[in-house]
Formats: sequence, structure tokens, C-alpha cells
Amino acid sequence: MTKITLASAQINTTVGDINSNAKKIINFIQKAEKKKVNIITFPELTITGYPPEDLVHYDHFVEANIKKIKEISKSVKNITTVIGFVNKIKNKLYNSAAVIQNKKIKYIYNKIYLPNYGVFDEKRYFYPGNEIPIFNINNINIGVSICEDIWEDGGLVAIQARRGAQIIININSSPYEYDKYAKRVNLIKNISNKNKVHVLYTNQVGGQDELVFDGGSLLTDDKGEIISSSERFKENLMITTLEIKNKQKEKKEKKEKYITKNIKLNRFENSNQNILPKVPNFSKIDSIYRAIILGTRDYVIKNNFSRVLVAVSGGIDSALVAAIAADAIGPKNVLAVSLPSKYSSDNSYKDASILCENLGLELIKIPIKNIHKSFDSSLEKLFEKSKPGLAEENIQSRIRGNIMMALANKFNFLLLATGNKSEMATGYGTLYGDMAGAFSCIKDVSKTMVYEICEHINKINSYETIPVNIINKPPTAELRPNQLDSDSLPPYDKLDLIIKLYVEKKFSPDKIAREFKKKFGYMNKKLIIENINLIDRNEYKRRQSPPGIKISNLALGKDRRLPISSGWKNT
Amino acid sequence: MTKITLASAQINTTVGDINSNAKKIINFIQKAEKKKVNIITFPELTITGYPPEDLVHYDHFVEANIKKIKEISKSVKNITTVIGFVNKIKNKLYNSAAVIQNKKIKYIYNKIYLPNYGVFDEKRYFYPGNEIPIFNINNINIGVSICEDIWEDGGLVAIQARRGAQIIININSSPYEYDKYAKRVNLIKNISNKNKVHVLYTNQVGGQDELVFDGGSLLTDDKGEIISSSERFKENLMITTLEIKNKQKEKKEKKEKYITKNIKLNRFENSNQNILPKVPNFSKIDSIYRAIILGTRDYVIKNNFSRVLVAVSGGIDSALVAAIAADAIGPKNVLAVSLPSKYSSDNSYKDASILCENLGLELIKIPIKNIHKSFDSSLEKLFEKSKPGLAEENIQSRIRGNIMMALANKFNFLLLATGNKSEMATGYGTLYGDMAGAFSCIKDVSKTMVYEICEHINKINSYETIPVNIINKPPTAELRPNQLDSDSLPPYDKLDLIIKLYVEKKFSPDKIAREFKKKFGYMNKKLIIENINLIDRNEYKRRQSPPGIKISNLALGKDRRLPISSGWKNT
Repeated sequence: MTKITLASAQINTTVGDINSNAKKIINFIQKAEKKKVNIITFPELTITGYPPEDLVHYDHFVEANIKKIKEISKSVKNITTVIGFVNKIKNKLYNSAAVIQNKKIKYIYNKIYLPNYGVFDEKRYFYPGNEIPIFNINNINIGVSICEDIWEDGGLVAIQARRGAQIIININSSPYEYDKYAKRVNLIKNISNKNKVHVLYTNQVGGQDELVFDGGSLLTDDKGEIISSSERFKENLMITTLEIKNKQKEKKEKKEKYITKNIKLNRFENSNQNILPKVPNFSKIDSIYRAIILGTRDYVIKNNFSRVLVAVSGGIDSALVAAIAADAIGPKNVLAVSLPSKYSSDNSYKDASILCENLGLELIKIPIKNIHKSFDSSLEKLFEKSKPGLAEENIQSRIRGNIMMALANKFNFLLLATGNKSEMATGYGTLYGDMAGAFSCIKDVSKTMVYEICEHINKINSYETIPVNIINKPPTAELRPNQLDSDSLPPYDKLDLIIKLYVEKKFSPDKIAREFKKKFGYMNKKLIIENINLIDRNEYKRRQSPPGIKISNLALGKDRRLPISSGWKNT
Repeated sequence: MTKITLASAQINTTVGDINSNAKKIINFIQKAEKKKVNIITFPELTITGYPPEDLVHYDHFVEANIKKIKEISKSVKNITTVIGFVNKIKNKLYNSAAVIQNKKIKYIYNKIYLPNYGVFDEKRYFYPGNEIPIFNINNINIGVSICEDIWEDGGLVAIQARRGAQIIININSSPYEYDKYAKRVNLIKNISNKNKVHVLYTNQVGGQDELVFDGGSLLTDDKGEIISSSERFKENLMITTLEIKNKQKEKKEKKEKYITKNIKLNRFENSNQNILPKVPNFSKIDSIYRAIILGTRDYVIKNNFSRVLVAVSGGIDSALVAAIAADAIGPKNVLAVSLPSKYSSDNSYKDASILCENLGLELIKIPIKNIHKSFDSSLEKLFEKSKPGLAEENIQSRIRGNIMMALANKFNFLLLATGNKSEMATGYGTLYGDMAGAFSCIKDVSKTMVYEICEHINKINSYETIPVNIINKPPTAELRPNQLDSDSLPPYDKLDLIIKLYVEKKFSPDKIAREFKKKFGYMNKKLIIENINLIDRNEYKRRQSPPGIKISNLALGKDRRLPISSGWKNT
């Protein structure tokens, strides 16, 4: 009988901050030591944070990370510690896991499957590993793998299991997408069951620019059942003790140099207070909201800001962003600004002020009428021969952008932009105007989903945090008299379906038309073609938009890389 | 004796514009047919343009490209035609070359070496090929390869030569960098000489977003001497006739299924009017200027604009951009705008107006004093307790951004931003202010090089196109009284060295300090650390900056991908 205690350190690292990441690692190791943990695992690229991007092209950065892993290893005594770092062998870089025992790096595993799609560019940086070491601790055989390695069916884990691995340690920096957690859990359960191995899955938690890592670390038994799981969107040290009976039978494949004793797990005990009895069941909208809160908070903090600015128009997008900001960093750290123009209705300010009262935000009002007038008179002669149009509308939006940035610059606020995915996709927003800001929390949230999240917030708060009036009124940019979004765009339920199918699913116009008919009962190919070409044409705006949090399968950011100059026309 | 006439079609395609690319291809084939060309070659990914980026993730786009290559092939009779396209085999995509003969695609070569560094993301899109076909035309053995394939030493060309290839066709979309052409020519000469093969090197020409393809297509003999070369930065059909004596001896390696007759070239004749007798010798600065002109012109045209706007301050950066614009699309299509503030000197306007006169540009003046005043009074109360600083300076710059965008929106101009690489690197520019614009022509041009290019322009024009007064006065943003760039930044010769070594060479601070000492005779590590950390900190600004033309080994754009949220500190 062998007893083994496993810990999964689901920590929030900061890209590039090697020193503070190391401090956190050591802190978690010490906590685990107190709990008599035998093995503790940390996320993928723990030392550098993930993704370090082109920082790893700097030799002195890579050297600092190697120096740090060696330094940490010297302080690690009896506890086996698995830490992600950038490994360098003959001038080639690897995405690696160091297995540290008794003050020494005893094994290094180099990631074999390097993702190079979506938001991932790992082949830009790393060479693939080609060795699959198995290490032995307390007479138990353990295989290490990194993230993508276990997503390859019939791949690495099968080889490790054949070689006698009983526990697979898989360290991750797997970004959040709203339907990924279920996939991930199923994958781990299947891999675990199929190969008769425990899987200790450790994921990073926290926000990094466009990405949010949701944690959700897990331990399965060798039948694929979940033994322990960590709450998502939070740091956590998940500790589980397994008691194991040795099987005497040796593996046949003698030629393999790896230790191949086959030991069967008998029972487990769960010694961690933070462990949930089963996988926590956040609803889709709830998990999206938590991801955005975490992503926003970390963007603010990791960029050394403590306060944010939001321009509240009285509309639903800015209401949601204000609510997110209040939740992410506390209402006292959020300044809301109302910037009414001559086209703004009194109700807009009223709604904004009720919202801010509900959220506990300070609201200041800076009317833009006079500034607007001064632009008008400066441009009067030049513009006198043409009808007022988009140019005049954008001037107002850019006056607001200027004021918000002036406040941000003056008082050291970080400005949050309020554009949603439907606007970002179609270019329904003003570059340097309402699109101005350091971070765009709801950039990957469709307008339809903006409503869902607002209703979710009101539900969890059990009262109208976001005034129903804001939810119910027809969307408008208020840049000309009686303007409505529906003057320029199709109804959002239709538009959002088109965006989802074109951007996320990459469907052809014909396929979109068929799906559209399925949902709405009629086909409108002209509408579809117009809108997907509108999406293509607005790449130039997106390229200058602030980064925002990816929550879908395909966000508008580094997930989607399209030419600005393009002669492609969907027909 | 075999006579063979080769043509290299150095054409300017448009990404995504499959129809117009096909028309151009057919047009060049017809031209070549009239000249009795036996083989004509087109650039890499001719059908789709290069780089098509995530467009190839759309099935219907890839299908359209395949349909088009088949359509073209039906019109190709006796002339062997090599065209780049996206190939699809069992749902995998390849970067491929179709060899078309007698109305049929006879061979397809799939690129083997896929670049995935710098500005290249080919592993995001394509699988590598694994076959090296040799085809025979007029009893001459020909091997095909694509771009990167010949940059691998001892790789593909050696195998093809061993298999009897006498001519290597290499099709390219190789972007311009100011020191790349010489490397490229040397590479081709060496490869050709080492393997005793002719190399017909065909490169794309034209601008595509951040990239400029400079053409420079070449034909070498089998000793590595250049027989023909195409002028760079222009479309060209380079035609060369070779007369060849057959060698009777067969190759030994019978088992290889490729045709392996070894035929030796005897002499060549050159029938193309456009061919230069030797490699054209543009100076470094001349080639940079041509690249920027081409990149700017194509960005404007390919985005369906015909006119551009430039804000001219009287400073050297905007003077250069105005000169570029005039040269790229003609002075009648450029509107220059002067936007004096209360801090602008009268000389600034005078200099701007002499510049515009020299360039033949219309100049309009829109003073921003009144608008500035209206901002001041709107923000008076909020700002009264603090000293004027950056916030106040930026307001002026963003008023200008707003006016320029209003003009652009109103009259359908494309706005050119005027920031140089030294400013982009250090963040010495105002987001949404002077950084506003659709395209940033001199984004990869250091301040030091801005001066060099201006002097070059004056030299080639044989008179002071750019007034010497603009060249000689100390750089200033004129956003506060008596402001100078040197208040905030080190002298540009020092700064530019630091930027070059940190950004382009990716040196560590210590290595930069050593190089700095070599050049300037003293070491100032503090200055270096301050400035490279300034570069790192300003990633957030660059992320929202307009795209600009890459001319260096490493431009600030998709060439350099760094986290915004980063705890890394150079020490």
C-alpha cells in the first residue's frame, strides 16, 4: 500500500514577472509542504507566465527564467514539484516542465504538440520535444505532459499508460471559451478512463490581455471519474490523498528503460477544504460574466492601474461595462462620466444616474455641446456645401473620446471601451471615439448576449441593478435626432446569428442562409451578403481597436487575422 | 540542342481579389505566348495574393481559388505555366504551385518549408508537402520550389539537382527589408553554383498592408551568374531564351521515378527589353524610399481610395509623409492640412506652406485655438487643482486627430499618420491624436533615417523639395511653450541605436551598452535601461496604431508580438 498526496496549484501568474511568479510558486510549495503533499504541480510556463509571446526571443529573458527555475529548485526538498518554464537546449527553445526533487531538477519534459492556431503561436517560439520520460515517486509511475499533448487522441497518454504510468500530470494554460470547460472535463475523463490512468489536470487562472484562464483543475481516478476539482476563476490549492495497492506483476516490455511497475489505485481520500464535491456547475452566462470580471480585473491590475473610467451614455453597453468595472475592482475605483450632446435625451442622463446610484459609482457630467459648437464653426466653411452625415456624427463621438482620454491621462485612470462584438464586427462604432480606451471588456460579447448578461446581473443581485428602462429602450448612438441602431443594422437577433456563423463558424454565405432560414423561417441572402461584407470591410477599424476578452470560440483579436487590404467579396 | 524560352511574371496581385488576379495572370500568359515563351512562372500564391491570412480558413474562399486555377488552366495551351495557389487535399491546405500544360494541371508541388517567424504564420494555415516532383519540358528537367524551400541549405535544390534538374523554378512572395535583396541574390547565386542548376527566381511586387514585395526576379546560369534580372518595385515580364546541348549520359539512380536526363546548358540569349544588364544597384536609402512609395500607393489603391490627407505641422516627419504621398499618388490627390494651436510658431506654418508649394499640394489651414479653448473651459473645474501637463498636451493632438478624421470621413480621404519608428517605439506620440490615421507610411523609419530620406529626396530632385529650414530646426511637438523632443528623449542618434539594438537585434541591456560604448565612446546603462523599458511599456499604444510599412529586419507590427500586460523589467 502506498499513500500519495497530490496538489494542484491553480495560480495566477503575470507574464514576464518572473520574480513575483517565483515568489508565488514558493509560497504555494510551502503551503503544500505543511499539508504533507508528495507532488505539487503548477501551470504551463509558470515561471514566465503564459503566453510570453516574443519576450522569449530575448535571450536575457530566457536566461532569467532558467536562472529562476534553478533558484527555486534549490529550495525544494522532499516535495516533488512540477513547474512550467522555457527550456533551452543548443539554442532551441522548448515549452517545458521541470520535475524537481531534493533540490534538483531531476527530469525535464518538453512539450510535444505545439498549438499554432486560434490565439496560439507556439511554433513561432518552440521546438517540439520528442521524449516521454516516466518518473517514479513513492513507487508510483508518473507521466508528465503539457496542455495540447493530451488533446491528441491515441497519442501521448496511451504511450505513457503502456509504459506503466498510473498518474498523468498535465499542466496547462488553457484559455476560457464559454463551451470549452465541458469539452475539457469530458476529454480528461475519457483519456483517463480509456488509458486506466489518473489524470491530475492543472490549469492557470487569471487574465492576460485578450485571454482569461479559468482554472478548473481536476483529478480523475483511473476509471475517468472526477475525484477532486478546483473552483474556477480563482486561485486554489487542490490537495488530494490517494491510497494505492501495489500490483506485483511486471510489464512485458522489458526493453523500455522507463520504470513500468503497474500499480493499481484502490481508494482515495480528499483532504482539501476548497475542493468541490463535483464539478461546479456555472451556467453559460454566469461563467461568461465571471470570465469577464476576472479578465478586466487582471488587465487593470497587471497594467498597474487601480482605477477605471467608463463613459456611461444611458445605453445598455456602457451600463454593462460599468457594472463589470464595479464588480471587478470595486465601485469606489470606478468613475462614470456622462457626456451629453445636443442629441442626448434627458432620459439618457436619468438612466445613467440611476445606474450609477445602483452600482455605487461616482458620476460626473461633462456636456459636450460647447465643444461641439466650436468644431462646427471651425469646419463650417469647409462643410457648408454638403449634407450633415457620418462625419458630423463621428465628431461628437471623438470629442467624447478626447475628454475621456484627458481624464484618464490627468488622473491616471484606465479607460474602458464599451463596444460589443456586434458593433466590432460591423464597424458600428467610431474609431478614436467610443472605440477609444485601453481595454474593451465586452468586445467578444454580442449585443444579444449583452442583454442576457444584464438580466443575469439583475437576477443574481435580486434587484434592478441595471435599470429595466436601460434594458427595454431601443438601442441608439444618439449622434443625430431620433437615431436608432436599427436604421443602419438589421435586428440584433438576426445580425448576431450572421456574425456567429460567419466569424465563429466560418460558414459560407449559402450555409449561413440555410441556417438563417432554419431559425427565422425565411431566407434573406442579400441581407447576409451585405452584412458579412460589412464585417470584412471593417477590418481596418478592428486593427486599431483596444484588446478585449475572448469568451467565444473565435474572438475579434489575435484569434482572427485577416488582411485589411482585401479584394475578396462574398457573393 | 534544345532552345527554351523562360519568362518570369513579376506581378502585383491583390489579396483576396481572385478574379482580378486571374485576369492579370491570363494577360501575362498572352503577352508571353506572343513572345514564344515555353515556360512562364508567377509568384507564390498568385491566385489568392500573399498573404491571404485567415481568408484561407474560409472553405468557400479556398474553393473559389481552386475553381479559378482550373478555369485558368483550360485557357493555357502550349506554354507551360507555373502558378501559385492554395491546394486542398483531404481537408488539408497546402501552399502550392500548379504546373499547367496543354489545358491541364499536370503537376502540383506543395511547399515543404513553411516559415512561421517574423511576419510569417504559414504553419497556422498549411501542411508541409513531402514530394519533390521533377517535370520535363522540351527535354529539359525542371524542379519547382516555393520561397523558403530554397533558403534551407543542402535541402531541396540539392535533391532536385541530384535527380537531374537543370532549371529550378522558385516562386516567391518575399517581403522587402532594406538589406534582404543582396542576401537573396547571393543565396540564389550560391545555390545555383553549388548545385550546377539554373535558378529562375520569381518574386511578387506590390504592397499588402504592412508588407512590400520588391520583385527583383532573377535568372542565373548553372555557375551562379545572373543572366537576367527584373527591375525592382515594378511589374515586369522578364523573358530569356536559353539554348541547350543534350548530354547523352544517364543518371545512375535508376530507381528514382523522376526523369533524370542530364543536359548541360551551353549558352543563352536575352530577348527581353526590360531586362537590366546586371542587378540594378539602388542605394539603401533609395530602395527604402521606393519601397515606401510602392507600399503607400498600393495601400491607398487596394483599399479603394484615390486621395489622401496629411496633417503638416512644419516638422520633418509630416514633411516626409507629404512628399511620399505626393510621389505615391500624385500631388493633386493629396490634401495637406495645417492645424496651428496657440503654441505653434508662425514659422511652422511658413515652412509647411513652402513645403506644399514645392510638392504642388493644396494646403488648408484650420486653427484649433477656439476648439482648444472650449475644451479648456469644459474641463476647467475638473483640472483646476493640478498643473498643466501631458493631459493638456494630448487634448490638442486629439483635436487635430478629430478634425483630420472629420475631413477624411466627409470627403472620402484616407488619412496618413506621420509617426516614425523612434516615436512608435518610445510611445512619443498621442493615441487618437497624431497617431490617428489609416496608414502609417514611416512607422518603420527611425528619426535618423527620416533625415536621410529627406536629404535623398532633395538630392534626386536636385532642389530643396523639403525646405532646409524643416531639416535643420530642432524637432518639437509644439504642444507647450518652447517644447523640444529632446526634453523627453535622448538625442536621436543615441535613441535610434538603442531602438535598433533592442527591437531589431533583440540584444540584452549589457550587450546594448557595449555597442553603445563602441559607437559613442562612453557607456550609459541607465539611459539604455530607461529607454528599453519605455519601449516595453508602450506596447499598448502600438497595439492601437495604424499599420505601417515594414522596411527593416524587424518592424513594429506583426513582426513583433509582445504582451501588453507584462511584469518584465529589463535591468
